[in-house]
Amino acid sequence: MTILERHDTGAVAHLTMNAPERLNALSDEMIAALQDQFDALSEDRSIRAVVLSGAGKAFCAGHDLKQMTAGRQAEDGGKAYFADLFGRCAALMLSIRSLPQPVIARVHGIATAAGCQLVATCDLAVAADTTRFGVNGVNIGLFCSTPMVALSRNIPRKQAFEMLTTGGFIPADRAESLGLINRAVPSDQLDAATAELAETIASKLGAAVKIGKQAFYHQLELPLEQAYAYTGDTMVQNMMYRDTEEGIAAFIEKRDPNWRQ
Amino acid sequence: MTILERHDTGAVAHLTMNAPERLNALSDEMIAALQDQFDALSEDRSIRAVVLSGAGKAFCAGHDLKQMTAGRQAEDGGKAYFADLFGRCAALMLSIRSLPQPVIARVHGIATAAGCQLVATCDLAVAADTTRFGVNGVNIGLFCSTPMVALSRNIPRKQAFEMLTTGGFIPADRAESLGLINRAVPSDQLDAATAELAETIASKLGAAVKIGKQAFYHQLELPLEQAYAYTGDTMVQNMMYRDTEEGIAAFIEKRDPNWRQ
Amino acid sequence: MTILERHDTGAVAHLTMNAPERLNALSDEMIAALQDQFDALSEDRSIRAVVLSGAGKAFCAGHDLKQMTAGRQAEDGGKAYFADLFGRCAALMLSIRSLPQPVIARVHGIATAAGCQLVATCDLAVAADTTRFGVNGVNIGLFCSTPMVALSRNIPRKQAFEMLTTGGFIPADRAESLGLINRAVPSDQLDAATAELAETIASKLGAAVKIGKQAFYHQLELPLEQAYAYTGDTMVQNMMYRDTEEGIAAFIEKRDPNWRQ
Repeated sequence: MTILERHDTGAVAHLTMNAPERLNALSDEMIAALQDQFDALSEDRSIRAVVLSGAGKAFCAGHDLKQMTAGRQAEDGGKAYFADLFGRCAALMLSIRSLPQPVIARVHGIATAAGCQLVATCDLAVAADTTRFGVNGVNIGLFCSTPMVALSRNIPRKQAFEMLTTGGFIPADRAESLGLINRAVPSDQLDAATAELAETIASKLGAAVKIGKQAFYHQLELPLEQAYAYTGDTMVQNMMYRDTEEGIAAFIEKRDPNWRQ
Repeated sequence: MTILERHDTGAVAHLTMNAPERLNALSDEMIAALQDQFDALSEDRSIRAVVLSGAGKAFCAGHDLKQMTAGRQAEDGGKAYFADLFGRCAALMLSIRSLPQPVIARVHGIATAAGCQLVATCDLAVAADTTRFGVNGVNIGLFCSTPMVALSRNIPRKQAFEMLTTGGFIPADRAESLGLINRAVPSDQLDAATAELAETIASKLGAAVKIGKQAFYHQLELPLEQAYAYTGDTMVQNMMYRDTEEGIAAFIEKRDPNWRQ
Repeated sequence: MTILERHDTGAVAHLTMNAPERLNALSDEMIAALQDQFDALSEDRSIRAVVLSGAGKAFCAGHDLKQMTAGRQAEDGGKAYFADLFGRCAALMLSIRSLPQPVIARVHGIATAAGCQLVATCDLAVAADTTRFGVNGVNIGLFCSTPMVALSRNIPRKQAFEMLTTGGFIPADRAESLGLINRAVPSDQLDAATAELAETIASKLGAAVKIGKQAFYHQLELPLEQAYAYTGDTMVQNMMYRDTEEGIAAFIEKRDPNWRQ
């Protein structure tokens, strides 16, 4: 058993965080293992969707507070270690964002602090309807400033501000209506619902999803005119793919496409 | 019968896309006809609101795939044509945005790909409750990269990402709760609901709506402090309109304004 | 009785706009009084949350139209006065945003135009379920261009555009589902619900809430990578607070923190 397990089903890679006794905390080891896997997946053209889940009772409970506290023993009180840790954690989040394949969080139990950030960072999320979400660092005096980067880009700002300053939890149906997750399902349907979403995406043309995912996040940060200029180029590139030509031809001829992917 | 019909009722212009056999696809001809009408409307001070609808079974099914495929016959495989096409389409969307008058999409049947983009681009949208919305180009290998510019500025990002990568449809009530449309109404009330909204807006001071619409989209892309500096200037300009002075005086004196518009 | 009353309960400051006969209009005097109080509060380390409410029938009905109309007597028709007025009003809104303590709007009756802007600007808002919200300046020919800066950063854009161009009101439950307020409660529970929220926040470590609130709004306007770099620094700073070290230690040791704040 390793700290991060991977098994593939067809074109879907399943990553399972496997430190259940620590509620899958984002320890140095967990961050490194996730980074390694996402680095490998970014080059893996046989995979067209990724599912991220957690073993045991929880999806992920955020940073490893015991490890962080141990870091305070350094001469600088841990300052350099913390800067490095948050840098590695941000790099991991940015890797999920820049991964060619969509990443689906399969969420259960709790997703708190950096664990909630992980949910917000994934492109999509399906959760058991019993899951609770929080950015509750404020309860121990550590405001969830990095988690809020992802959270505040998913849900309206007053609702994000409330979660951050009260440290309160929200249930899965609330997370769904706010936009933090795509849907909440009964626990016994969580695997099936996640698999269905992953397989639907994996059935699409990988090259189109790849160029589209990249364009999605890039254009979000551009002014409108620039966003159109940029995505216009993206459309032209996409039109020139041989598989796209085949996909459009098949649609016009009312037959299934014969993709080489 | 032309490809785009216009009739005016009072201060409201009604544009109807009229290529029902092609589900009102945004062909070269349709884009040109829409651009012409929006250019004309931008100078037409007698019109204070615009309603855009589609004849036949659907509002609009996006680009004209047969025409695009024919474009591949060029020596460059269509590359120059596609770049030009997406440029013209983006210019059309930006014209709706910069039109002095609010544009209301009256939506029924389906609104897919660039047709869904058109709905997202209009300032307001009223839909029959049987309408289905999708950005489903991914199903044929062509990711809806330009439609997502408008879509992702209307609805939360995980929900936009799901629509884009699964190619799935959402019903009108979901479109309403996500923010893609203002409201869904029974089909037999669609015309009345759209007309009521258009006439309400057309009853306002056109100069105020014009300066306000322009400021709305401009300030959205500014940092907060700049947005306030910019809209502060807008308010001052608006205060100096003679009809605004009359509107405020009438309010204080509890009478109807006597506007010259 | 002054135009703005303040009383404190523990670490919570309560500001009450007190010009009920003018529906607490944001007159020159009210803006100045609010600015003075927020300036004082920004230096007051004994206060960890602020509640803003209005005396009488309404929370706030926006600018003082009679005072503005009187301003037209100046040689320039009021232009310089209006520019100054909107500048002071924007400065007030920016002061709420940059105040170290979270500000909760306690809303009842109506919140219109700049009164609705005030609700949107506050970090959090709790409203009586009978409250109505509007940005209805368009009805008198004055588009709510400055209020929309705050409104359009709280709710989806088609819904904001509709409110702005129709001048219509929305009820409290709609304001809640759109994200303009955190929750609507029965009138007789408004004080209790607001107090509970304020006291929850006031029970947290003030230094963490302060650095978090500042980071919240700053990072919202940054591109993703810069937002992570910035908030990573924030997290490191926050980790170095002695009270945060104590908060984390207490959590690990399963005891209450002994904060010096």
